[in-house]
Amino acid sequence: MNKTTQLLRSHRSIRKFKDKPVSDELINEIVLCAQAAATSSNIQATTIIRVRDQEKRERLAEAAGGQTYVTTAGAFLVFCADLNRSKLACQMQDGEFSEGMTEHFIIATADVALAAQNAVIAAESLGLGICYIGGLRNKPQEVADLLALPDQVYPVFGLCIGYADQDPEVKPRLPLATVLKEDSYLNPEDISGIETYDETLREYYQLRTGGKKDSCWSEEMKALVGKESRPHMREFLAKRGFLMK
Amino acid sequence: MNKTTQLLRSHRSIRKFKDKPVSDELINEIVLCAQAAATSSNIQATTIIRVRDQEKRERLAEAAGGQTYVTTAGAFLVFCADLNRSKLACQMQDGEFSEGMTEHFIIATADVALAAQNAVIAAESLGLGICYIGGLRNKPQEVADLLALPDQVYPVFGLCIGYADQDPEVKPRLPLATVLKEDSYLNPEDISGIETYDETLREYYQLRTGGKKDSCWSEEMKALVGKESRPHMREFLAKRGFLMK
Repeated sequence: MNKTTQLLRSHRSIRKFKDKPVSDELINEIVLCAQAAATSSNIQATTIIRVRDQEKRERLAEAAGGQTYVTTAGAFLVFCADLNRSKLACQMQDGEFSEGMTEHFIIATADVALAAQNAVIAAESLGLGICYIGGLRNKPQEVADLLALPDQVYPVFGLCIGYADQDPEVKPRLPLATVLKEDSYLNPEDISGIETYDETLREYYQLRTGGKKDSCWSEEMKALVGKESRPHMREFLAKRGFLMK
Repeated sequence: MNKTTQLLRSHRSIRKFKDKPVSDELINEIVLCAQAAATSSNIQATTIIRVRDQEKRERLAEAAGGQTYVTTAGAFLVFCADLNRSKLACQMQDGEFSEGMTEHFIIATADVALAAQNAVIAAESLGLGICYIGGLRNKPQEVADLLALPDQVYPVFGLCIGYADQDPEVKPRLPLATVLKEDSYLNPEDISGIETYDETLREYYQLRTGGKKDSCWSEEMKALVGKESRPHMREFLAKRGFLMK
């Protein structure tokens, strides 16, 4: 382990922040790091909107299901997958933009995530805490309206960045052997790793909450993938010009 | 700038590797870092397949359009978006898996990219070079067959990791002001940032190739989004149980 891998392995989400803004200088440094991430065919499909307007932040917090730290973090960034820019570039060369390709959606979404994770590592290395806000996809149309996003742009997630006012523990992960395989997937029905992790996670929750939280991974997954999640996303994305073919 | 942000900002893809394997110890450390990335609702949708079998690597290199470094890198990992595992977990709790949700596809794809970028930063901090291989999506069905991927799992990209045998320059990015906006998107038709970057990139290519490569960003984008990209992806994903609704 070196200092960087130590930093990577000590990540935890921060949801309580000190009342202290993050300077423009730090945000610029963080965004330059985000831009430095690998990008598919150099498409650079990430656009970041820093939301300073407090009323907008309150409405975003509400859209995200009442996550108040969206308003209290030192900075709040919305990471958007942006094909509008490459469309403009294509048109500058008299090209005709090929709208709605699934492949372009994958490229753009992955691009944003790579850039965001670089932003996160940069922020954490600078002594800041972060929390991703996937909850923006609860009401993506509202978010798009609020930020005046054009077609071919969608908000993938938000990112709270700020000075931590809490010190949560690192959450345990699935066993390494469950996620790292060799040469082929093998035994797609094997649940032994899940069973092990269920125990680990249940113990972690019980210790952390003095016995109050009694849950495990398979229960969490039932709640997440055992129901329709954000069923509006498909139509929302199609309206914005994504995932049409 | 600190050492980590310096590392982040000095990324460049490596496509020529020394003939030296990456040890299991390093790969494990890199994968533990990947696992430590934030994950949406703790879904941990990333499965990594390390391909050691040289014949498989040759076939993957071919699928990726003849990218020989897939076979010569010290290690080659395939990053898969995996909902099979959360489906199993859901079923362990007598839940019924909700198949094909667009939202789950976004979660899984973003999850993989966050984990992969952590792996990349870990690898680079350990003195290794990397190259993402999106080209696996040229022939995703072949890749899935070769690695025996079950339904609800798709290969997002590959990752070459190894000891660099070249020292390429860092590629310039779009102007900061073009990708970082405040409070709203504003001027979605503004091409000034693209024009500036076109010049920067053209100069960069000309200097680097002694005048041989004469291209710019808008030309690259025309080639990328001015045509149908990997039009098989939608059907491939639907067949695997993704993006059905």
